[in-house]
Amino acid sequence: MQKGAILVLSGPSGSGKSTVINAASEEIGEYYFSISTTTRAKREGEVDGVDYFFVDREDFEEDIKAGNFLEYAQVHGNYYGTSLKPVKEALKEGKLVIFDIDVQGHRLVRAKMNDITTSVFITPPTLKELEKRLRARSTDDEAVIAKRLQNAKSEIAAAGEYDFTIINDSVEVAAKQFVTVSKAARLKQSRESREKFIKEWFGEE
Amino acid sequence: MQKGAILVLSGPSGSGKSTVINAASEEIGEYYFSISTTTRAKREGEVDGVDYFFVDREDFEEDIKAGNFLEYAQVHGNYYGTSLKPVKEALKEGKLVIFDIDVQGHRLVRAKMNDITTSVFITPPTLKELEKRLRARSTDDEAVIAKRLQNAKSEIAAAGEYDFTIINDSVEVAAKQFVTVSKAARLKQSRESREKFIKEWFGEE
Repeated sequence: MQKGAILVLSGPSGSGKSTVINAASEEIGEYYFSISTTTRAKREGEVDGVDYFFVDREDFEEDIKAGNFLEYAQVHGNYYGTSLKPVKEALKEGKLVIFDIDVQGHRLVRAKMNDITTSVFITPPTLKELEKRLRARSTDDEAVIAKRLQNAKSEIAAAGEYDFTIINDSVEVAAKQFVTVSKAARLKQSRESREKFIKEWFGEE
Repeated sequence: MQKGAILVLSGPSGSGKSTVINAASEEIGEYYFSISTTTRAKREGEVDGVDYFFVDREDFEEDIKAGNFLEYAQVHGNYYGTSLKPVKEALKEGKLVIFDIDVQGHRLVRAKMNDITTSVFITPPTLKELEKRLRARSTDDEAVIAKRLQNAKSEIAAAGEYDFTIINDSVEVAAKQFVTVSKAARLKQSRESREKFIKEWFGEE
């Protein structure tokens, strides 16, 4: 039986997605963490092929035309997207593919690969707590923080579109819950693999 | 936050549902196992209120009229159904409610309580293995076994309607997978509880 499956993790900036994934990482088992491609400028400390694949606008738009993206969007004038190729390869190897994408990206992945997709929305316990966390990072100026809080409000309104919700009050608990969801995600069966299983089940193969 | 959630387990007779639930039972945490109501005759060894609530046809039909069933169906001339009351009470207490119901019942629960429902289909690895298990039970005569195998074929065709699939090749592995799904099921949020959370989140309370 094919074991490749997709796990989408979304949540507002500052909800602690990366921290939770890192804390859960060892217990999740083998997985492929999908790296997004973007046209935005590389920030200090970011590494190409680790944080993002950084490409120029022209290349990105060519890939769009060629149908090479599983999902993509324009945010604040920059493109962000997920290339299909590495995802398909990881799925073929039977890996769990984890996406850290936004609400819009989740909708597009669902539309294309619903049968093997499990999704979880992670949220800070309160808006106040989110604001506190964003300020504590101290990498963002006031305008960016205000923008992030605004985005958080509209993202959280879409939490109901996700299979599961994790309220990130404690990283330890949230990481455990994320491990649970990742294990459950592996129990999704693609339509293809189910059809194959049913055929074998009936002894028709 | 409300924690009440529903976990539907379906699978053909002989797929090992009861064995898996029993093996997983200790690790699932507190749950309420929904007991069905039926009009069929009590078999030797069955206990009222444990295996089923046994009622007569008249009472069952009165409860249908009164809207007291979450789901019900007629199978081989007998009624089977799930009373709403104990389910609602258990959910109110924040419990995970586990249903062992058929494909038809799953559809009805989904239709009514989709937002808090997670479902898992359990299947024996092959039709041959199922036949072997049904014969090993030796409680059923040939006609019943043939009927059960027929039903299994139509049930397994509906596996794709479920969130997750467990292939019961080893009880130990299947029980672990069931524990995982039961933990994930608790991360479902009802629409009501999500709306409340969002209000609080925005500090509107």
